Amino acid sequence: MIARYQREIMKELWSETNKFDAYLKVELACSYAWLKQGLFDESTYEALEKASFNLDDIYRIEQETKHDVIAFTKAVSLTLGEEKKWLHYGLTSTDVVDTAQSLILKKVNRILIEDMQKMMAVLKEKALLYKDLPIMGRTHGIHAEVTSFGLKYALWYEDFKRLFNLFIEAAKNVEVAKVSGAVGNYSANGPMIETIAAKKLGLETSNISTQTLQRDRHANYISVIALIGAELEKIAVEIRHLSRTEVKEVSEYFSIDQKGSSAMPHKKNPISSENISGLSRVLKGYMVTAYDNIALWHERDISHSSAERIIIADATTLLDYMLNRYAHTLDQLVVHESQMMRNIDLTQGVVFAQSVLHQLIDQGLVREAAYNIVQSLAHKALNERTSFKELLLGDKDINEYLDKDQIEACFDIKKHLKYIPDIYQKVFGVDISL
Amino acid sequence: MIARYQREIMKELWSETNKFDAYLKVELACSYAWLKQGLFDESTYEALEKASFNLDDIYRIEQETKHDVIAFTKAVSLTLGEEKKWLHYGLTSTDVVDTAQSLILKKVNRILIEDMQKMMAVLKEKALLYKDLPIMGRTHGIHAEVTSFGLKYALWYEDFKRLFNLFIEAAKNVEVAKVSGAVGNYSANGPMIETIAAKKLGLETSNISTQTLQRDRHANYISVIALIGAELEKIAVEIRHLSRTEVKEVSEYFSIDQKGSSAMPHKKNPISSENISGLSRVLKGYMVTAYDNIALWHERDISHSSAERIIIADATTLLDYMLNRYAHTLDQLVVHESQMMRNIDLTQGVVFAQSVLHQLIDQGLVREAAYNIVQSLAHKALNERTSFKELLLGDKDINEYLDKDQIEACFDIKKHLKYIPDIYQKVFGVDISL
Amino acid sequence: MIARYQREIMKELWSETNKFDAYLKVELACSYAWLKQGLFDESTYEALEKASFNLDDIYRIEQETKHDVIAFTKAVSLTLGEEKKWLHYGLTSTDVVDTAQSLILKKVNRILIEDMQKMMAVLKEKALLYKDLPIMGRTHGIHAEVTSFGLKYALWYEDFKRLFNLFIEAAKNVEVAKVSGAVGNYSANGPMIETIAAKKLGLETSNISTQTLQRDRHANYISVIALIGAELEKIAVEIRHLSRTEVKEVSEYFSIDQKGSSAMPHKKNPISSENISGLSRVLKGYMVTAYDNIALWHERDISHSSAERIIIADATTLLDYMLNRYAHTLDQLVVHESQMMRNIDLTQGVVFAQSVLHQLIDQGLVREAAYNIVQSLAHKALNERTSFKELLLGDKDINEYLDKDQIEACFDIKKHLKYIPDIYQKVFGVDISL
Amino acid sequence: MIARYQREIMKELWSETNKFDAYLKVELACSYAWLKQGLFDESTYEALEKASFNLDDIYRIEQETKHDVIAFTKAVSLTLGEEKKWLHYGLTSTDVVDTAQSLILKKVNRILIEDMQKMMAVLKEKALLYKDLPIMGRTHGIHAEVTSFGLKYALWYEDFKRLFNLFIEAAKNVEVAKVSGAVGNYSANGPMIETIAAKKLGLETSNISTQTLQRDRHANYISVIALIGAELEKIAVEIRHLSRTEVKEVSEYFSIDQKGSSAMPHKKNPISSENISGLSRVLKGYMVTAYDNIALWHERDISHSSAERIIIADATTLLDYMLNRYAHTLDQLVVHESQMMRNIDLTQGVVFAQSVLHQLIDQGLVREAAYNIVQSLAHKALNERTSFKELLLGDKDINEYLDKDQIEACFDIKKHLKYIPDIYQKVFGVDISL
Repeated sequence: MIARYQREIMKELWSETNKFDAYLKVELACSYAWLKQGLFDESTYEALEKASFNLDDIYRIEQETKHDVIAFTKAVSLTLGEEKKWLHYGLTSTDVVDTAQSLILKKVNRILIEDMQKMMAVLKEKALLYKDLPIMGRTHGIHAEVTSFGLKYALWYEDFKRLFNLFIEAAKNVEVAKVSGAVGNYSANGPMIETIAAKKLGLETSNISTQTLQRDRHANYISVIALIGAELEKIAVEIRHLSRTEVKEVSEYFSIDQKGSSAMPHKKNPISSENISGLSRVLKGYMVTAYDNIALWHERDISHSSAERIIIADATTLLDYMLNRYAHTLDQLVVHESQMMRNIDLTQGVVFAQSVLHQLIDQGLVREAAYNIVQSLAHKALNERTSFKELLLGDKDINEYLDKDQIEACFDIKKHLKYIPDIYQKVFGVDISL
Repeated sequence: MIARYQREIMKELWSETNKFDAYLKVELACSYAWLKQGLFDESTYEALEKASFNLDDIYRIEQETKHDVIAFTKAVSLTLGEEKKWLHYGLTSTDVVDTAQSLILKKVNRILIEDMQKMMAVLKEKALLYKDLPIMGRTHGIHAEVTSFGLKYALWYEDFKRLFNLFIEAAKNVEVAKVSGAVGNYSANGPMIETIAAKKLGLETSNISTQTLQRDRHANYISVIALIGAELEKIAVEIRHLSRTEVKEVSEYFSIDQKGSSAMPHKKNPISSENISGLSRVLKGYMVTAYDNIALWHERDISHSSAERIIIADATTLLDYMLNRYAHTLDQLVVHESQMMRNIDLTQGVVFAQSVLHQLIDQGLVREAAYNIVQSLAHKALNERTSFKELLLGDKDINEYLDKDQIEACFDIKKHLKYIPDIYQKVFGVDISL
Repeated sequence: MIARYQREIMKELWSETNKFDAYLKVELACSYAWLKQGLFDESTYEALEKASFNLDDIYRIEQETKHDVIAFTKAVSLTLGEEKKWLHYGLTSTDVVDTAQSLILKKVNRILIEDMQKMMAVLKEKALLYKDLPIMGRTHGIHAEVTSFGLKYALWYEDFKRLFNLFIEAAKNVEVAKVSGAVGNYSANGPMIETIAAKKLGLETSNISTQTLQRDRHANYISVIALIGAELEKIAVEIRHLSRTEVKEVSEYFSIDQKGSSAMPHKKNPISSENISGLSRVLKGYMVTAYDNIALWHERDISHSSAERIIIADATTLLDYMLNRYAHTLDQLVVHESQMMRNIDLTQGVVFAQSVLHQLIDQGLVREAAYNIVQSLAHKALNERTSFKELLLGDKDINEYLDKDQIEACFDIKKHLKYIPDIYQKVFGVDISL
Repeated sequence: MIARYQREIMKELWSETNKFDAYLKVELACSYAWLKQGLFDESTYEALEKASFNLDDIYRIEQETKHDVIAFTKAVSLTLGEEKKWLHYGLTSTDVVDTAQSLILKKVNRILIEDMQKMMAVLKEKALLYKDLPIMGRTHGIHAEVTSFGLKYALWYEDFKRLFNLFIEAAKNVEVAKVSGAVGNYSANGPMIETIAAKKLGLETSNISTQTLQRDRHANYISVIALIGAELEKIAVEIRHLSRTEVKEVSEYFSIDQKGSSAMPHKKNPISSENISGLSRVLKGYMVTAYDNIALWHERDISHSSAERIIIADATTLLDYMLNRYAHTLDQLVVHESQMMRNIDLTQGVVFAQSVLHQLIDQGLVREAAYNIVQSLAHKALNERTSFKELLLGDKDINEYLDKDQIEACFDIKKHLKYIPDIYQKVFGVDISL
């Protein structure tokens, strides 16, 4: 991933050094398992534990062998004495590579979980802050009914609860040790090596594998990452819409020295939200790639490997960047409350038409007749830019069913926020009505 | 979906009639909720329950109104008396559409669950049947080590356990009632209508929604369907490989009148497996579409609707077809056991090289030296088409470390099947060693 | 494709009857080639030309043979006398299937070309109609500079010129006869059969093929279809944005009986544009599938076939529907000209800031200083909702560089439309300045 | 892109330094255009031409301004005197960014074109080398008819001719200057600046643009890159199949020190081909992303930018790597000619069944009868592992139509290579029959 979209922690976790560190941890965990299985004594294991490696050695040997794990084990052997013969004992390369990747992913996933929690904290805070702030609800881009600005955040929070659970499950499926040998039947070492090594490494085991863990695990994992990306895009699209000049209900925070455009000095653009929209598309592309890695040949082919070197690091790095950047953007978002009220008033009150419709039915008018009369007055109000309420008050047919107070009541904004506490109770488990 | 890939049950479930039936069920469940909330009395509800519709009425009215739910409610109203004014009371169209889709999906999902269970039953049966059947394990398409044919099925069974769980979770997230009104704040009816109606329909509720259920639910659902498709492709690719003329370890069952080719009368092609490979690609495409439906505008835009009309029906219909067809193909698969043994013997015994390598290390040779000597003799055996075992027996260096019996033991196939019972215990929870 | 999104012409072209008609045309074209090669005499060919088929026969025979081309040739043979032995002579099934598909695609492509031409005619007409209509130009969703509404159509017209060319090229690559036999080496009939048959059918030939035409052709074709879909989505997104309540510069045409919402009688939603947005996503999914069909095994495997049965018909049917529907929508689009001017005035004139910036630089101020002073006054105008022009006129620093007339000139809308004729000249090759 | 899959030339072309170099070239080309338009005199332009930049300055200023082009112009201004006021005159940022990207892409495309030419040279050479080498043709993975090994390369060569043309067209569409200002109407500078600057830079111009070039251009470009990737995957899948232990007709070249497996010393795996298979999947993912960048809002939103920073550099870098690596792999591929003949003989001669079928029809037998008799003997030969030719010679029904010589002739391999010269003439324009 390019430096611009890479936080330091992800750069480290996906570095070559950290990869070979993980290889070494896996080798030693397997050595530990062999110790427990009685292959050699404690002193041999202690000698093995002193193993280290030099990156340049690995690269130099890989030039010759064209095989990175063999290069790695040879380089490590250079730092060992006679005990080196037990290094990598009974293992096939992928036992090390797949298990090491799981080990790195476990750390990566802890970071991503924290990222999501940070995001959810911001969403919850804003949901509570804006719970009573009326805003125009819009469907098809057209004004529909008034709602609460806080409800948008509550929705996203609930989305994240769902996504968080999906991520936890998907993450679990890629944090798995695999030491089952060349074709997955443990012929070289028996299942106990895997069991003991996995426990030492803090990883799960798989009931069965081939030379590798099965790649539906990783495909599902990347699909959930792309799903979180799509959720961020959903939020970003909302913010971009609300930032439009004609809507202008929110603005991204704009520091004093920041420039919006080199040609148009007045511009304050929602660039952080636009950035998130773009990056979410990249995650979706990685998902497509990840699905293509599932149908490997027989007990494995290595075609997934080149693709994964790119997409697993890049997808997780990008999501980490996006969650961090966008939690910050949302936290700092500037909200223009008075503009929200101005927009509610933009359409002469026709956005309260549904209330009128329901009142008319309640008062005995048949649904279709009610619909027709309300639609007709609503269009008149819009076309002639006159007050919908005034039209209602002056309409003979309406007045047969509704008196002035009943009509006024239809235009009460509070009515639209009445059930917010019920929703917040379900989403957050808190009582905001107090 | 074209008729060729559509089972009758899916055709029915996704028919227009069944869709409007589901609409009516949702309308009546909401009417029931209003009854319980005291809006009208039992007799009104009983009258409403008699509602029905005529498809032609709906289509005719839709021509005018360009709105299918309004056309539907008008058509239903034609079958009602005065009580029709309570039909659709307090609802917005999507309350009906989304809830009805959830209702249909619930039935669809029951079918898909049965399909998966059928597939898993076949996989388990074959895994047990072939547990001791030796087959060449292959990595990179190259012979690696001997393994058990049954283990392939056990792997797929375990994969399906994982996919089954993912599907159950994903299905749950799309079997959800949504009666929260035009912008999701329940302003027209309060949350109890949703709660009561959902219960009556046997659906879950969402803690919060907009005008619609959030589409990450459906994207995740389709992504899991595509994942199951990818698993089927994985199996199909294996069968296609094993069916190759040069490998010929299995054949798809070929009925007496079946023709393989119009030009080549001898051909028996794995067409069912090839069919599955192709269809799995279609599911992957639907997934991409489903992800694009997530970032709707504000409280909803309807762009997802046209896409979903196609992909949700088509994806579920296709997966149902694939699971049924392929369970049958696998059930009838012809297995050529003797050819498996012939293939094991194809490479002069070098596939037992790893055992020799480990034996040499166990007997004191350093790993790298062992590797080099074994590699050199293996290549000699391959290049000169001579027996690897004979080369070992005649090699001075080898004989310093291994005697004849030890060498012979390396070529024992049973060694490679030794831990099959452990794996089956984990996968199936059964003890096959008895 | 579901009936809702399928025009009659596409339904016919992709019907089973039309498919087998095309098979028969291909068989007869090959018979004709054999005639020309002297395999049999005119009278035999004339007898062959009387061949026909009965769909039910084909379906019945396919039940037994599980092979649709063999079923087809058998069914056709039922309608022939002794000459039936020359039917399908020297052919392999895919010679017929691939060539017949090319034949159908040729007709399909003529329809799609007409569709595009219709769309382009609408775009050109509107471009000319609205060439002088000022509208706010927006970047990042934020007001930027005034531009011409007609220019939007001109842009799309130019896009379509590019897409049209891509389509013509891509279409050419799938309108190709293939009669090269079971593995592509013409062993059964020599290259002349293909050459003659192709000419008779009005198709191109391929220099080389395997059992099939290579599927990069079809992948590219579907990718161009998806590209046209994406262009339609681009237009649809523009229309949806301009239809927003707060923007309201256009509305989709709304017939007198049409209903926008079952709950909100006042709503006029851009549902046609939303429909197009959704369907374009489906096309993108088909593209992903099409790419997976390229890497077939050896001289062909048939995995692409099941996928293509779905996606080629569905993609072309959908694009035909989209182009027709949306050309109509754009043709009927209601344009609110006065609202466009209202929106230009929405931001106190700061959208003319760039002109001021350039004027200041022209008059000798250094770029950065000019930028800073203009940005500061622009923000002041926006924040205090006061006239940007007044602020400029009253600013001491500005007045050192610009006099009143120069400031006024910066706010002249005509300036922004000055080069429209140059652009139209390039796009349409017409001089609109006259 | 990770270092492993990045050639030095691509690293340089996509470096930050090269990006800002391109920015500067664009700025100066526009200054040159202004000079020609008479905005300032030669000496000013000469002073501007001395402009340079310091990367650290840019990064430092970007920290404050959060806008990379403004940071760039400020940093460049630091290296200029009073003439700096004409730097970036009349331009909007994207004029610079889009044009600079086109400039870089032009160089990138030259490299990719050379890469393709190198690949095509290898393919042509091998096609000619192996033109007469018989190999089993396979469909559905099952032996079909004999063909020529050279024909595979000829097919790929022809594919590349088609892809090369698509690439040239797609490349042309992204090598385009864009200096049309903030919303594409040239209001700040008139169309001549673009025309003159484009010419100076060696780029095309667009007839119309918005703030940016339209992104269908780049989507199409990436889709062609993914198409070339898919072609490479097709070749790689063929090589992987032919490398299988049971087929073993080719092997990737294996240097003396290279290791195939850490556990199985005898393994020679087609890892280069597997690598290509994997990387092609990554390109397909980028294509999906690129299509999502098309539907930008109004006169542009910047959401495409973040995605493009990743995918355009990564897609081109990867394709360059793939073409280079795989041309080398194919060049060095080891071909086992005798094994090809062994595989032809694998099925007792039934692969010549089609010739027999056609001979029987020629000699007067009805197609269906001929098919049935040939199929029956072919299956007998396969099932009983006896010679198909012997079965034919001993069959009473056959002997009624064919004599010994006619039967022998059906088994002549030359017959299958007879039309190779015709194909080569069409593909390469050379006469190989001489």
